[in-house]
This record gives sequence, C-alpha cells and structure tokens, in this order.
Amino acid sequence: MTVSRTVELEGHIIDSGTMGHCFGVVMDMGGEFEVEEFEVGRHKHAETYCRMRVLAETESDLRAILHELNQQGATVADPRDATLEAAPEDGVVPVDFYSTTNHPTFVRVDGEWVEVEDVEMDCALVVEKNADDERPRVYTKVLNAIEGDDLVVTGETGIRVEPPERPRNGSGSFGFMQGGVSSERPSASLIEEIADEMREVRENDGNVLVVCGPAIVHSGGRDALAELVRGGYIDALSAGNGFAVHDLERDLYGTSLGVDTESLEHPRKGHKHHIYTISEIARLGGIEEAVDEGVVDDGVMYECVRNDVPYVLAGSIRDDGPLPDTITDSIEAQNAIREQAQEADIVLMLATLLHSVAVGNCLPSTTKTVCVDINPATVTQLLDRGSAQAIGMVTDIGTFIPMLAEELLE
Amino acid sequence: MTVSRTVELEGHIIDSGTMGHCFGVVMDMGGEFEVEEFEVGRHKHAETYCRMRVLAETESDLRAILHELNQQGATVADPRDATLEAAPEDGVVPVDFYSTTNHPTFVRVDGEWVEVEDVEMDCALVVEKNADDERPRVYTKVLNAIEGDDLVVTGETGIRVEPPERPRNGSGSFGFMQGGVSSERPSASLIEEIADEMREVRENDGNVLVVCGPAIVHSGGRDALAELVRGGYIDALSAGNGFAVHDLERDLYGTSLGVDTESLEHPRKGHKHHIYTISEIARLGGIEEAVDEGVVDDGVMYECVRNDVPYVLAGSIRDDGPLPDTITDSIEAQNAIREQAQEADIVLMLATLLHSVAVGNCLPSTTKTVCVDINPATVTQLLDRGSAQAIGMVTDIGTFIPMLAEELLE
Amino acid sequence: MTVSRTVELEGHIIDSGTMGHCFGVVMDMGGEFEVEEFEVGRHKHAETYCRMRVLAETESDLRAILHELNQQGATVADPRDATLEAAPEDGVVPVDFYSTTNHPTFVRVDGEWVEVEDVEMDCALVVEKNADDERPRVYTKVLNAIEGDDLVVTGETGIRVEPPERPRNGSGSFGFMQGGVSSERPSASLIEEIADEMREVRENDGNVLVVCGPAIVHSGGRDALAELVRGGYIDALSAGNGFAVHDLERDLYGTSLGVDTESLEHPRKGHKHHIYTISEIARLGGIEEAVDEGVVDDGVMYECVRNDVPYVLAGSIRDDGPLPDTITDSIEAQNAIREQAQEADIVLMLATLLHSVAVGNCLPSTTKTVCVDINPATVTQLLDRGSAQAIGMVTDIGTFIPMLAEELLE
Amino acid sequence: MTVSRTVELEGHIIDSGTMGHCFGVVMDMGGEFEVEEFEVGRHKHAETYCRMRVLAETESDLRAILHELNQQGATVADPRDATLEAAPEDGVVPVDFYSTTNHPTFVRVDGEWVEVEDVEMDCALVVEKNADDERPRVYTKVLNAIEGDDLVVTGETGIRVEPPERPRNGSGSFGFMQGGVSSERPSASLIEEIADEMREVRENDGNVLVVCGPAIVHSGGRDALAELVRGGYIDALSAGNGFAVHDLERDLYGTSLGVDTESLEHPRKGHKHHIYTISEIARLGGIEEAVDEGVVDDGVMYECVRNDVPYVLAGSIRDDGPLPDTITDSIEAQNAIREQAQEADIVLMLATLLHSVAVGNCLPSTTKTVCVDINPATVTQLLDRGSAQAIGMVTDIGTFIPMLAEELLE
Repeated sequence: MTVSRTVELEGHIIDSGTMGHCFGVVMDMGGEFEVEEFEVGRHKHAETYCRMRVLAETESDLRAILHELNQQGATVADPRDATLEAAPEDGVVPVDFYSTTNHPTFVRVDGEWVEVEDVEMDCALVVEKNADDERPRVYTKVLNAIEGDDLVVTGETGIRVEPPERPRNGSGSFGFMQGGVSSERPSASLIEEIADEMREVRENDGNVLVVCGPAIVHSGGRDALAELVRGGYIDALSAGNGFAVHDLERDLYGTSLGVDTESLEHPRKGHKHHIYTISEIARLGGIEEAVDEGVVDDGVMYECVRNDVPYVLAGSIRDDGPLPDTITDSIEAQNAIREQAQEADIVLMLATLLHSVAVGNCLPSTTKTVCVDINPATVTQLLDRGSAQAIGMVTDIGTFIPMLAEELLE
Repeated sequence: MTVSRTVELEGHIIDSGTMGHCFGVVMDMGGEFEVEEFEVGRHKHAETYCRMRVLAETESDLRAILHELNQQGATVADPRDATLEAAPEDGVVPVDFYSTTNHPTFVRVDGEWVEVEDVEMDCALVVEKNADDERPRVYTKVLNAIEGDDLVVTGETGIRVEPPERPRNGSGSFGFMQGGVSSERPSASLIEEIADEMREVRENDGNVLVVCGPAIVHSGGRDALAELVRGGYIDALSAGNGFAVHDLERDLYGTSLGVDTESLEHPRKGHKHHIYTISEIARLGGIEEAVDEGVVDDGVMYECVRNDVPYVLAGSIRDDGPLPDTITDSIEAQNAIREQAQEADIVLMLATLLHSVAVGNCLPSTTKTVCVDINPATVTQLLDRGSAQAIGMVTDIGTFIPMLAEELLE
Repeated sequence: MTVSRTVELEGHIIDSGTMGHCFGVVMDMGGEFEVEEFEVGRHKHAETYCRMRVLAETESDLRAILHELNQQGATVADPRDATLEAAPEDGVVPVDFYSTTNHPTFVRVDGEWVEVEDVEMDCALVVEKNADDERPRVYTKVLNAIEGDDLVVTGETGIRVEPPERPRNGSGSFGFMQGGVSSERPSASLIEEIADEMREVRENDGNVLVVCGPAIVHSGGRDALAELVRGGYIDALSAGNGFAVHDLERDLYGTSLGVDTESLEHPRKGHKHHIYTISEIARLGGIEEAVDEGVVDDGVMYECVRNDVPYVLAGSIRDDGPLPDTITDSIEAQNAIREQAQEADIVLMLATLLHSVAVGNCLPSTTKTVCVDINPATVTQLLDRGSAQAIGMVTDIGTFIPMLAEELLE
Repeated sequence: MTVSRTVELEGHIIDSGTMGHCFGVVMDMGGEFEVEEFEVGRHKHAETYCRMRVLAETESDLRAILHELNQQGATVADPRDATLEAAPEDGVVPVDFYSTTNHPTFVRVDGEWVEVEDVEMDCALVVEKNADDERPRVYTKVLNAIEGDDLVVTGETGIRVEPPERPRNGSGSFGFMQGGVSSERPSASLIEEIADEMREVRENDGNVLVVCGPAIVHSGGRDALAELVRGGYIDALSAGNGFAVHDLERDLYGTSLGVDTESLEHPRKGHKHHIYTISEIARLGGIEEAVDEGVVDDGVMYECVRNDVPYVLAGSIRDDGPLPDTITDSIEAQNAIREQAQEADIVLMLATLLHSVAVGNCLPSTTKTVCVDINPATVTQLLDRGSAQAIGMVTDIGTFIPMLAEELLE
C-alpha cells in the first residue's frame, strides 16, 4: 500500500449501516484502512465520528475508492476540484461523464463545494461558471438536453453525495428506502397517517402532487378525488390521456369504459362512449374549452380547471385519440413532469405504474412519496426508486380515496 | 343410426346457451338429432320449448349421449331407473359410481324422480330405500364416508341434473358462474349491493356464513367484523387457527403478529405474542373458557361466544399451537364445515383461499357467494367453483369490512 | 309492433351463441321476432340457417335493432346504403360517427357491400369514392388522422360486421376470444404448439411480429431470441427504448441493468452501464451506425440490423435517454406500429404490457396472437382484446424463449 | 446508571450489521454503553472484535438488555444459568417460557453451555438432566408436545443465540435472509446454480427434500421430477393429497384434473378422473399396493415407491378423498414433516405455499432453501422465513423442472 488519504465519517453512521458500508467498500476494492479516531454516539440523538486512513496500491485505485466513499457520504480530508469537460455536441456527453444519484450532491468547483440544483438520478452534471464574483452553479441535465460546449463533470473527483440517514426510531409509517412493502399493516391507520402528512404539507404551504391512473375512475374513487381538488388538498396533477378521458366520459355519459358506475349496468353502445368523449372534447378544442362552454361540469379535470390546479397529461402509445391536451412527445412530456416533480413536497402515486415511474425518475430522494396500488409488484417497484421517506400501500384505490377524503374533509 | 329416443328442453335455453350445448353434445358424441318442435320464447320472460329426436349407432352410444343431455338439464321422454350397486366395503365405492356436480340433481328410483339431498360436488349418491310406503331418499356422501353395503348410484341412467339458468338481464352485481372477475367496477357501489343482499337474507331469517382469513386482523378489519357479529349480521363463522389466534392476540396484547395495529409500532418481543396467546388460551382450556374468565373481552371470537354465533376452526399443517378449539383432523373439520355450508344462504369468503375452497367444495351451486381478496388469482379461483350467483371483488379487506359495516350498521 | 324487416342468419350460429345473442338483442331493445325458417345443421360441419321477421314500435327502434343484429353478423334482407358525412375539420369527426370493431366489416356504398381495409377497432370509417368506374374504397382512420372533408360513415345503417365464429372442436391450443387464461396447462406442450404455428407461418411466407419487453434481457432470454432472428423466424420487432438499451448494454458491458447475466454478480458501477450505453449509442448516431462501426456485434438488435429485420422502438415517458432510434412522438410511433400490425400473420407478445396493448389496438380480430407473461393479469388483459385465435401463457420468459428456440432451431 | 456488565462481540460484526444492531438495542432499551476495545478486521476474511460495558438503571433492565444482546450473538462476560420451570400439565407451558428462533441456540445449564438439538422456531426449550456424569440435553418441543413436568426454560437468562453472519461477498446466488426476490435475474443461470448445489449435496451424501405442489403435474413438470427421483437426486418428498392424486391420475387416465397433458384436450368425463383415481387407489389400499399390483407404473409417486424415497402426504381441508396414504391429522402430519425437515440439507419448495410454510416452520436457519413459484408473493413470503441461504425464483415450474433435470441428468 503506497498511497493513502484520510477520510472522515460523521452522523448516525452505525445505525444507518454507513460505517459498515464504507469499511466494506475499501476492502472490496483492494484497499486497507486504519481507524484513527472513533467516537461512538451513546445516546439516541448523539452522532458518531470516525476518522480513518485509507490505503491503496496505486493513485488510481485510491481515487476510485475515495469516489465510492464520497458516494456514501464520507468526506475526504484533502479534497480536489471536480474534472470538467465540454460536451462534444448537442445530446452527446463526454465519455466518462458522472451519472447522478437522486441524493443531495455537492461538486467542488474552484475550491468550493457547490450544491447541485434540481437533483435527479441518471443525469449529467453541468457546471455554469458565472462572470465576476458570482458563485458557479451546478445543475442536472438529462442526456437529451445536453448542448454542445456544456461543461460536464467527468471522472470521480470532487463529487460528494449525502445519502439520507436512516432515522433511529423508524419514521412513523414512512419507511426508509425500503424495497419491500408489508401488506400486514392496518389500512385505516395508514390512511390516517397519510392524511396527517397531507394536512401538514398544506399547513406549511407545501406542494402536493398526485399521479393518477385510470383505475381511479373505474373503481369509483373519482368523486372523492374531485372533492380533494376542490378542497385545496391537491396542488398539481400528473396523469395520462386515459385517466382524463375516463373522468370526462363519466361526466358526459355517466359511464366509465362503458359501465355505469352507479348501477353497474352496461348500457348498449356504452363501449363507444370512450371514443365519443375524445371526439367531443377534440371538437371543442380541449378540456378547458369544454369546461368553459359548460359541456363538462363535474369531475377531477373539471375541478382542476376551476381551481387552477395545473395538470400534465402525458401521452403514450396505447392512447386513443388523444385529447388535444395530451402531450404526445415523450421528451416534452418528461420535461413537463420534471417541473411538477421538482415543485412537489409530497407525491401521491395512485394506481398507475407508468406515470409514477416517470414522476419518480425526476424526484430527489428527499421528497416524500406515497405509493398506492392493488398490485404488490407495482408498489414494490415504486418503493425501489429509493425515496428516503416512502409509504407503500397495497389496497383498493376505490376504497382508499373515499376514506382519505373523509379523513381530510370532515 | 339405428336407435333413437325423444328428448325435451324447456326454459331460457337459448340465452343460457343450453340449446347450443345440447346440439353440440349430440354431434360431438357421434349422434344426430331432428328438431321435432321448437317454440321460441319471444318476450323477456317467456320460455323456449324444444323437442328433438336423438339418434345413435348403438344403444350404448345412445345411453352415453342421453346421460350428457341429462347433465345439461334435458329430459328424456321415456326415462329408466338409476342403476344401484352396493359398496364393497367402508370407504370404497363401486367401480363406475356416479360422481356428482353441485347442481340440483334427481335420481329415478322405482319409477319416481327423487331429489338429491345435500347436493355437493365430487360425491357418490347413496339411495336409502325405506320400509313400507315411504319414499326412498337419495343423498350425497363423500368417499371416505361410504359404508359397506351403501346402495350407490352407478352408470349414467336415471340421473337428471338442473344446471342453473343464466338470468336474462344479468343478476345485478351477482355474476353467473363466471370464471373471470372484473376489477373495473366501482368498489363502493359493489359494497352497497353486498350490504343489500345481507340485509335481505337477514330479513328472511336466512343464514349468513362468513369465512375469515388472518389478513382481516392485520389489515385492520377486525373491529368492524366484530361489530357485524354483535349486530346480528353473521350467523356462522368458518376460519383457521391463525385467524382466531390473531384476533385473540389483538385482544390480549394489542398487537397482530407483533405489530401494534393502532400505532403501527413493533413492540420489542412483539413477535412472541403470537405463541404466548396460544399458550395462554391453552392454559385456560379454550376460547369460551377465556371469555368466561374475562381474559378475552373484545374482538371477533369474543363476540361469537357472547352472541352464540357458532364457529368452526379448521386445523392446517402451518398452524402454531394449535388452540384447543381447533379441529386438527381434516376429515372431521370438513364434516363440521359441511354442516355450516349446507345451512348457509349466502357465504362471504374474506381473504382466505384455503378455507374458502374448503367451504366452496361443500356448497350447492344455488348458494350465493361473495369472494373478497386483494389477490385477483384467488378471487378467480373461487369464482371458478361455479356458483350460480357470485360476486367477486378484488379489494383490500382492511377497507372493505369497515365500509360494509358502515353500510349495515348506520 | 308496427314496422318489421326480415333478417337472415347463417353459419355455426348455434354453437357460437350467435343465434341466442340475436334473439336476445331483439328482446332487450323492445322488439319481437318470429322465426320464419329454421334449418339446423345436424353434422359437425353443417351450417344452420335461420330467417326471422323482426318487429319494432317505430322505424328508429327498428333501425337500432337492425344495426345491432348487423354487428352480430346478421344480414338484413333489404339493406340500405350507409350514411356518409364530411368531417368538419382536421382531427374532428362528425357527431354520431360509426366507431369500428376489430372484426371484418362491410359498408354498403352505392348499393354495393365494400369490405373495409385495414380493420382496426375504435376508428372512423372513411369512404373514398373514386372517379369513373372504379369501386369505392372504405378504410379505417384513427381520430387524429381525420382530415377535413373526409367522407365519414355515421349512424347505423349499411354496416355489416362478421364476428369470427367459434370453431366447433376448439382450435387446438388457440383459445377463442377468451377472457381467461388457464395456468393449468403443461408448458412444454404449449411451447411445441407455438413452435408449430411459427413454422407453419414461415412455410407460408407469412409474417411473424415479435413484441419485446426488457424482461427478456434480464431473465436471460436474449441470446435465444437473437438466434431466432438470425434463424429467420422473426420478420419484424416492436419494442421500447428500454428493451433496446438492455440488449445493447449486455453487448457493450456484459450486464443487464448492471447485473452480469452469467455470473449474477453486480460489478461496481454496473448501475451506470445503462446510461453509458445510451450515451455511447447516441455518440455514434444510432444502432445501425453502432453495428456498422463494429461497436455492437451481438444480440437481438444486432441480428435485426444484420438480417434486415425492421424494428420499431416506441418512446415512453419512463425512458432514459432515449436512443436516437426511438420514436418519441406517440402518434408517430403508433403509426409505425400500425404498419407492423397490419403486416403480421402472427404476433408474439413477450413480457410487455404497454407495447403489446399498443400493437393489439391495431390488430384485426383475425390475426393470431400469443401472449406470454409471468403476470397472469397481463395475459388476461391482452387476451381480452378479442383475437379470434389467441394463446395466453403464464410463464417465465427466461425459460420460454430458450425452449422455443430449441424447438425451432434443432 | 447503576449496574453494568461487560459484553463481547466477535466476527464479521460490521458488515453483517450486528454491531450497529447491538449498539441500537442498548440505546433503545434505555441503557448506555462504553466501547472498551475495538479491533477492526481490515482484510476480507479478518474478524472484528468489540468489547463494551453495558450500563442500565436497574438489574432487571440490564437483564432485558443482555437477553437481547444474546439474541444478536453477543456474549456476556460473566453469564448465569438459564431458569428452568416444570410444565404444569400436558400441552401447557409455564408462563414466560422462552420461545425459540430458528438460529443455533445454546442454553447454560449447571454452568455449561449446551447446544439446543433440533432447532426450530416458536418452540419451547426442554432441558433433560441426565443421571450421573452425562451432560444434560436441551431440545425444542412444540407446545402441543409438552408433557407435565417437562423442565422448560423461562425468562431471559442463560440463553445465547448465534444468528448467521452475512457473508462478505454475497453467497453466490443464495441470498442472505432476504425478504425480497428479484425477478430481474437470468433464469437459466439460476437453474445451473441450483443444479450445482444439488450435485454438491449429493456428492457429500447430503439429503435433498423436495416439497411439491399440484401445479407440477398440471404444468408438465411431472415426468422430469420422476426422472430426478429415479436418478437419485431426491432423498425425500413432502406434498399434499392433491399432488399425489394428480400424479396418479396422470398415470391411470393420462389426464391431470381432466386435461390430457399431451394433446391439451379435455376428454369427456375427464373431470371425473380425479375422484375416480382416489377411489381406485382406496380400493387397492394405498399407493404402494397400487404400485405392487402394477396398476401404477409411472410418475413421481411410482418412482418414490420403487426407489425407496420416503414421502409424507399431509392432509388439508380442501382435499378430495383423501388417499389412504394421506395423514389427515395436522399435528401428526407436522410431526412427520418435522422429521423430514430435520434430515434435510437442502429443501426445494416447488409451487406450493401451504406445504412449503409447513416445512419451513420446522427448518433451522442453517438449512439451504430454494423457493420456486410463479407468484412473486409466494416466493417473498417463503424467503421471509429467514433462511441464511435461500434462492427465490419466480418462474414457471413447468419449464423449471425439465431444465433442472436436463442440467443434472445429462
């Protein structure tokens, strides 16, 4: 071992497993370490401090190890600036660009640690050095948004990540970056906790983003969701063409995919209501126009228009129509979703995998998420995205939303 | 075609597909038919009548065809008596014994059609010829209950089955012998319909049997179910050792499988509450004794004891303990379940596949069933059993029972 | 009943339930019927003929009934021409336009029944009257493709649909428009039957379209699929950005989503291979360029390029990147998929719901489909689309494709 | 903090999270700790040593903390004997009895640590003090097996548990006590690894227990499983009545639940084959008799009889019949399963939840397990049981067994 560097770890690094991880990283990558100082936090809220010397065979091995330690939140005692390289052309990143995580990230530019704006995973980091005395900015860019000459962070030096710490005493019903979901928890209690969170976000002028799948309408959760929009509990809505059409069909024809959601009957020709709804809205020019003309006077989309709750309808290849409001280009739709995601303080993902994944891709790990679906595999997949605070609930959206609305609106 | 017989069909035989089936049976089995009379029911409630001559090459072919037509509800114009054979020994049926369906069935004995008692599928039919002038009785016996010298129906002659007719205008939310289950129906409306059915059964002094899985307790549906028992909406309960232990653990320790169902916390040692609950009830001698001594004063099992709602706890190889109340022999348990099933006018199958299948195996096709589970495969499998009136609902038992109780108790 | 018309039904109308349906339609819609002639097909391959007089209260009621009968395949004795109306503007259909099914359809124009080209459900029918003596053409158009002045079929007159007949003796392993899927069938036998179908399509110069989900790569089915492409068993491929990236990542880095698919190990930084693959292909300009430059020399996409098998990569909002080859506009992507679908004689839908639904939306009911997924709900949803000949198989794509390839290539 | 004791931890306590857990236990339970010595293992295979002084307010608090530390594998420097209490009567344990985990456990009796025999979770520990110089024995007993005067371990003193250590570099494809299951792993590679394990167990004269669900027969895995039995790869078989009946039906009638597993056809009356099979075997007296008389000459049960592979058929309330070989009493069946489980070195759980849970309940955490099912929820639930080395695989049993057999037999 010919080269070495000193590294510090601080925080709840024992409980959270960070210390074990860091020791493991060094050993896995062929290095060694010597613990120079180790102060254990003995009380619940006390933090632990560990300083260690990391040794490696070559400078390049050492750099690789330090990079991984940085990704775990360790601080190198004597850090260097990040390496920057200009993008060769639009949409093309330099080879060996740094691909982001969704955790808070800092980049060292000109000797200073700069916090990355709009953290999002699988992006490049672009540095903007400003004129004069202003501090440089660092922000994320998806690959397709890269422009020629953008200064992109490459390699492994000068990047520090702060993965969220696992809270000592659980985080109430919010689980910590957990991949699993327990269906063995009482539904009504969980719904109360979700309502409490939403109330708190609202009291703090926070932003609640709801991601909606069409099952909300089929399963009878639509009216309660409309009430939540009207009641001011929803600040933005993200959905697909299908959700909007089902919601509007319910208003125009009293059916959802041709089924009368009250009487459960299938009116003859009901299966055509779906496509008729689309052509009717298209004729009027869009949802807002349909509301303005009084053709649509009820439902989730209606309440969004009336209460100025912005919505994004992202297109997909399985869409009928689509509605004039639907964004058919997926990059354009992702950009619209990205804006919603970055505003959100809590995201409710309701009975849609596709749109929830799209939103989840844009979220920093610090945003709270609630994932509700009747399919446990969907909930598991969404929780795997790694939010620091997430509730996964395997339940029926058709009973969930009414019970949530009852909690909030009574 | 050298032999023939005349067969009659009557009822809603066009809508229900019976006529098409019968024509198909004849052709598939190598016979031919001539429609001699055909009166179509022109109005919604009018029945159709069809008389046809069935032809076959040999007497044995003809007998096989007629048997199949009988199974579809057709009546042979000139019927013969059923063939009877004595069982060779206990638990052994004659070769070629008739294995039952779960539809109303009639056996021709001494020139008379006798209705089969306690219809149940996959059983043998035993004929009891009584002394003197009394009519003979015919009833079902499972294989293991056969006794030496029982007169068992064999072959295909003299047996008539009346499969239920598909109702013309749907049957409300009850589906007809359907194998599929739609999750695209509004949950709250379906729950209302189920509540209506239960109210009606109760008003007609009918019998409501509820089959309970342990998820009822984990998911927070226990208190509402206990209220339904107290409110007189449940006449019998069928479950396993697990359900009872979870319900009792909730009462004794405030946890379910170690989780506090209110606070969602896991008290240290909570995972031992399950086995402690069993040993505690075992010490007292059983559930009724635990209620009498005031140790158990809350929950579903408590309300059953207090309100004289009889319960069957059927054992299984995955049981811990088990409780003294649990019937560990599966034949004995099936017999206890059989009695419950034969009494029931409507059966609610709640979040358990094993116990629902066991109950469903004993039900005639005329009993209404409601199957509720979060796993669509479970609901589909239960509906496949072929009840003439069944509702399948893919939902969360932890929101379903509270909403059902609210409908019924308010 | 003041108005009436004569209607004829012909074919296997008893087995297929068509006759029962037609009688039901008349009664449900308030009409009556008198069977004037009824000739039953007595042998397996004989057809049945039924002529009936349909009566209704008003001319408009009668028209509605006749329309529904036409949808079932009945022929009105004295038909009229379809009603045509010009589209008011681009993307807007006339009110009351006829929305298509996916069954073979005929429209009566100038006294002649014209078969609809490119049958597809939920479309408008556009009539093109040609100059001089040429016959008019009728074809489907999706709503967004409608142009001002297109002559669109409206109302219910002059449209005849030929729903496929249920075959008498099953259709081998292909099920008939069935909503359910049995997992209780032996996998190896089913795979043999699918291989037989593919061989037959190939021998008849037919077209095999394969729709691919990313799980093919994760689960280890990629190499076998590449062999099938190389062996000439695949004529077109439809997938998303994700499938192509996973396939290319496997080639470039030996991993799939960062997992080494042979050793099952997770190389450090493996999770970045996904995004690196995208940037690498983007740098080169696309998949074909990457193959030409020798960077990609293995896998499914490679074999497609080398063997001139055309592929469509349809974009979605959950895509990373995307690759330059991916069509990001959903309408443009649907148009590309539509072309593939119309060419196909058999479609294999492998482990993707989104892309399978998109393809299925464009298929006529006469195209054979094979749906393979490990999630039974996905298979059920795909079979519900109503192909006349469909096999649904709940299995592991990672064992299915190797076994299929072994059948076909040995 | 008035009382204290010294505790030692040794092993891979950092990687495995044990150290973090132990520190957490002390803090959660209101104690404090002082790390007196801490030697970190710097190399891959080096172990870490930690000695700490644990402080608490009261002696009883301290005892509770020490008990929890023992459960994590910590060793108290100055241990005491376990508390023993006689069982009050048959089937009743003393209040506060110690309920076991499935990890290797040691009990201190008369100053000596005695290893518990037949480790199994949720049992009581019974101490047998032998005459003269022999060492005392300690073994597990399920509650229903407790006899009056059995010396049962109570309280928290003198019990030490050795939870398995998480291996540093993964354990190949075997996961470590993981609750989740990834379907994103290549199936063929996993099957190879399972085959390797089975080969190794066989070479070491180990014992392979296979737990079988009826889907093996439906899905076409039966013949390959029979070959594995014949080939000597299976040492014991655990199943239910249904599996055996399906296997025998296949032999007697060529069908499984009435479906011809080769031609996929449903022979008329095929649905009766199931119950006919049962009555046929019952007539002969059992499976062995049926094999001896040459009535059964093929299949899994046949090979078990011919190759002296012992089987347990455990009864359940959903059984038809049952067969004479089926153990109908669940306690008796559990005892038979327990014997199989304690012999096993590796357990393959194939497409059955009920029987796999029953076997899993009896396994120590040191037995390797392989769980295969098409339903991910089943695999997850089985892995949750906490085996130190488990592979979970979500796949089709009908393709899995043939591929496994091909690996092993060729």
